[in-house]
Amino acid sequence: MALIDIIARKKRGLALYGPQIREFARAAADPDTPDYQLAALLMAIRINGMDPRETAELTLAMAQTGDMLRPEVGGVPVDKHSTGGVGDTTTLILAPLVAACGGKVVKMSGRGLGHTGGTVDKLESIPGFRTELSEKDFLRIARDVGCCVVGQSGELAPADKRLYALRDVTGTVDSIPLIASSIMSKKLAGGAQGIVLDVKMGSGALMKTKKDCLTLARAMVDIGRRAGRRMSALITGMDEPLGSHVGNALEVREAIDTLAGRVRGPLLEVSLALGAQMLLLAGLAKDEAGAGDLLTTALKEGRGLAKLAEMITAQGGDARVCADPSLLPQPRAKTPVPAPMDGYLSGMDTELAGRAAQVLGAGRLRKDDVIDPSAGYILFKRIGDAVKKGELLAMLHHGENAPAGQAGEMLLQAMRFSDAAPKIKPLIRARIAPDRKEK
Amino acid sequence: MALIDIIARKKRGLALYGPQIREFARAAADPDTPDYQLAALLMAIRINGMDPRETAELTLAMAQTGDMLRPEVGGVPVDKHSTGGVGDTTTLILAPLVAACGGKVVKMSGRGLGHTGGTVDKLESIPGFRTELSEKDFLRIARDVGCCVVGQSGELAPADKRLYALRDVTGTVDSIPLIASSIMSKKLAGGAQGIVLDVKMGSGALMKTKKDCLTLARAMVDIGRRAGRRMSALITGMDEPLGSHVGNALEVREAIDTLAGRVRGPLLEVSLALGAQMLLLAGLAKDEAGAGDLLTTALKEGRGLAKLAEMITAQGGDARVCADPSLLPQPRAKTPVPAPMDGYLSGMDTELAGRAAQVLGAGRLRKDDVIDPSAGYILFKRIGDAVKKGELLAMLHHGENAPAGQAGEMLLQAMRFSDAAPKIKPLIRARIAPDRKEK
Repeated sequence: MALIDIIARKKRGLALYGPQIREFARAAADPDTPDYQLAALLMAIRINGMDPRETAELTLAMAQTGDMLRPEVGGVPVDKHSTGGVGDTTTLILAPLVAACGGKVVKMSGRGLGHTGGTVDKLESIPGFRTELSEKDFLRIARDVGCCVVGQSGELAPADKRLYALRDVTGTVDSIPLIASSIMSKKLAGGAQGIVLDVKMGSGALMKTKKDCLTLARAMVDIGRRAGRRMSALITGMDEPLGSHVGNALEVREAIDTLAGRVRGPLLEVSLALGAQMLLLAGLAKDEAGAGDLLTTALKEGRGLAKLAEMITAQGGDARVCADPSLLPQPRAKTPVPAPMDGYLSGMDTELAGRAAQVLGAGRLRKDDVIDPSAGYILFKRIGDAVKKGELLAMLHHGENAPAGQAGEMLLQAMRFSDAAPKIKPLIRARIAPDRKEK
Repeated sequence: MALIDIIARKKRGLALYGPQIREFARAAADPDTPDYQLAALLMAIRINGMDPRETAELTLAMAQTGDMLRPEVGGVPVDKHSTGGVGDTTTLILAPLVAACGGKVVKMSGRGLGHTGGTVDKLESIPGFRTELSEKDFLRIARDVGCCVVGQSGELAPADKRLYALRDVTGTVDSIPLIASSIMSKKLAGGAQGIVLDVKMGSGALMKTKKDCLTLARAMVDIGRRAGRRMSALITGMDEPLGSHVGNALEVREAIDTLAGRVRGPLLEVSLALGAQMLLLAGLAKDEAGAGDLLTTALKEGRGLAKLAEMITAQGGDARVCADPSLLPQPRAKTPVPAPMDGYLSGMDTELAGRAAQVLGAGRLRKDDVIDPSAGYILFKRIGDAVKKGELLAMLHHGENAPAGQAGEMLLQAMRFSDAAPKIKPLIRARIAPDRKEK
């Protein structure tokens, strides 16, 4: 079967057959396949779409172009995926909490690129922490500790790796079937049996509207279920950074503070909601209320923080950071960002706020950029808070030569102020529960 | 302006702006532009289309990526383009006849590829004939003799050369704006002020329906007129080979026989119809009837054959073939194809008939295949003719090791027979006249 015939069918808007989809995935993983044929097919899919059956078949076929893990971890292996946001440290909070409740969290994470942070970068700010482990060590730690977080291996879904890079340069990123199959191919290959999706919505997210978020969430849930996985999804707000800390070591510190019970707020709320879904999928709770109770009890008893320390030790890191966060990388300099006027913080361009952290050194513009683990900022105000002119809005953390002035201006530019208190939107906008109901 | 932004606009189905279209043409001619971006844009155009303004602007921009000829030939330079068929030798008949009536025919032709023959290959079967001339010699002969036929120079429309090759391997051939702009970019660069289009319709043509043919013809006429050229187009039948001779030397022989007045039929009818349009566009006749009279008088008086001999001499060939066609390459062997049954020849798969000539050595499967100038066949029956079982349908001309058995079977497989006489369709199916009326 030639790729040109597959292109010919999709350009006419027809659904591809199973063997055609498998040939497409195989060809994408084959270095001898010319880029121009994949580019033409990606554009035909971008314009003419794929139905749920095609999308699910493509995802599984892409996963099967590489290793397919079958984690034996003494329980139902569960995973969580976020579509990416700013100050989104939920993994570092929910993975230890779920493990403390008996869950087995097998999590492969990416590095940050663009305005969103990556969990692997955050963890690597812990002295000694290793995110590149053998598959054997990865699964042993997940089994023994209950959670393990590593970087994505190059052997998972190589077809996706090729297509992902090509989509970026051919204008074919904005396609629900291609986004969904890209994310889910890696999740299916990772071997989790229960997968919770956190689809971010708002100014810091890829998807800006609830309709688009639900379409993507439904597509991914459908793929997972067709592949025999237990799935649930939350649509959560990304109208401002989720936590108050943005930056790698800063976000680890906020996770520790949260697990220590010193901090509450939206970051904890979303972490608990996602963690509850993971317990449900793992069969460790009967309903959301029961799952929530398990998690809050573990939190109160300090068992989440103990699990985080255990995981850090197992992955070669210095667990003393859990008791003393000042052992995390500290910035050479700090720069305050004062409020320019009286009023209310009424809105944020969260993508721009993410880029402010990036220019301080917390993120990458290009794949090979080196990041500064201590760089970022702490926000002292959330949307809805009243501010007084001159009051501290944020404290930038940065190196001596970082463009703090520029970052401060970007952060202020990202913030909107109003005279009246703005309406606050709920954090959890929608959910697709394990029982398949949308709420 | 980045190509990625142009792709983004076209994938959303929006019309491209002039500067975007010129950037696309420039990028296509630039070897540093990656194939995958051009492939993605070609597919977006294939699916979402281009309006007449976009198509015309693209065509002119493609033409302007290379040399733009301005032929000074002592009259209105005219050209003709056929979309390609089998046994289609009209150029060798109409170019000398139009020249004999005072016209100036500047014709750049292609080589054959696939099931259709190329005029350049046909002319090169004449001993000594040269189709690669300097631009100066080309225009001098066109001026002095009144007609000159050469191969396409690589300096004309290099953007088209790149895109044409890429379309073939990305499933983006079947797009009216891309077909029309490809053909017309070379015609505009060639410098003809009057251009006659022969859009073939039927089993041997790219376009099978009158609707598709008219759409393509209108698109090309529109492009030419927007570029200030005088245009007309005929839709002509390609339900069977146009002449009775198929193959390079064989078609030259049929052209000589026709100009000598020994042969009449559909090939002459279409040649005269196209030639009349050329005289009209050149301002050498007031109406089609007058143009037809000029051509038939030139034919009767043998002035067409004399012009052909003059052109052959000017282009280095042995003009004695005009008086003695046996000087053309002769086959080593001939194989008869008898009728398998009594009845009427009722239809032909003309593409398959073309491929039968190809396997004998008359055409190329790949660009670098060497052709046998003497190979091909003569048909003794046309659609509508009664046949008796065993009667000669065709005589194959070929080399000693050519697969004559296979070619004979292909030719028979291409023919349909019926008990009753079939209805014969008119040869000229539609026309777009110089006065812009469709008839």
